[in-house]
Amino acid sequence: MDITRMEALLRACATLLLLTTACLVRFDTQTSLIFPEYSRTATFRDMNALYVLVFMDVAVAGYNLVQLVIRGLLSSHMKQDMNGSYKHLAWISFLFDQAVVYMLFAANSACLTASLLAVRGEHDLFWMKLCNKFNRFCNQIGGALLCGYAAFFLMALVSSLSAYSLFRHYSPKKYLVLK
Amino acid sequence: MDITRMEALLRACATLLLLTTACLVRFDTQTSLIFPEYSRTATFRDMNALYVLVFMDVAVAGYNLVQLVIRGLLSSHMKQDMNGSYKHLAWISFLFDQAVVYMLFAANSACLTASLLAVRGEHDLFWMKLCNKFNRFCNQIGGALLCGYAAFFLMALVSSLSAYSLFRHYSPKKYLVLK
Repeated sequence: MDITRMEALLRACATLLLLTTACLVRFDTQTSLIFPEYSRTATFRDMNALYVLVFMDVAVAGYNLVQLVIRGLLSSHMKQDMNGSYKHLAWISFLFDQAVVYMLFAANSACLTASLLAVRGEHDLFWMKLCNKFNRFCNQIGGALLCGYAAFFLMALVSSLSAYSLFRHYSPKKYLVLK
Repeated sequence: MDITRMEALLRACATLLLLTTACLVRFDTQTSLIFPEYSRTATFRDMNALYVLVFMDVAVAGYNLVQLVIRGLLSSHMKQDMNGSYKHLAWISFLFDQAVVYMLFAANSACLTASLLAVRGEHDLFWMKLCNKFNRFCNQIGGALLCGYAAFFLMALVSSLSAYSLFRHYSPKKYLVLK
């Protein structure tokens, strides 16, 4: 299978997973009694980490779509000619891919930490458990996190492929010289 | 400058930063009054994220030392011959480098999230601010996180270099064929 096709396919799958994650978190609400006669509605706005995750997922999905369009338009040129301006494009997309994967992983992990605090509480710090009050809400966030980590895994593969397709144009003998 | 030398230098610097981070977090304690007549000592054990960060930093520092030793012993062979078993070694160290960088970034980001919760509290979730009670403790954790992100940045450079030195041995025309 062609390497550019494989990259495009992985990017498309990752985009779908990212949008699923964003929707799962964004539209997750539950109203519940916390103290007697005091009810509250839990949404993704209650926790900054969730807010950042939704933002990041939508941004990365947008970035993927832009990349898919650019690569679709330019793929035939990029294969022939690595000396011209396409070299810069390949470097820029390598750097962006790397940055995007780290951002995605950080956003997911931040959410996971905050969620674990909400599930178990932190007795030493006087932070109460909340997931026993908002059961359905927490399960949906858990599903969204699974989706988010799957998307991260696909994006990590994409970033390795983009490193491979950039660096294989360089000479194995001399430092940063094109073949 | 030679690329293997540069990688070794970056690895050594990253190891020093990682050990600094681990020590800063590990030996950070402060005793303070939280409620009147109720004092508590804050240590890195109070928060799981800090515990994981110390563990991860020490593990990654150990991994870096192992890599430095292996590369120091084998570097002259690896340059000449990429077809033999050194190819497997290059692939394994590429994969480990990638995994280690993600782990490091995730541990740092998890700590940052938990620390921001401790600094600002989360009023919606009834989690109280704690850093106004443990000022010096929180500042030291902040410094450790800066150190940790610097170490992550160096390790990200190292992982890019290791991708470069693996993939430049591959053919630009055919899929996964060595030159």
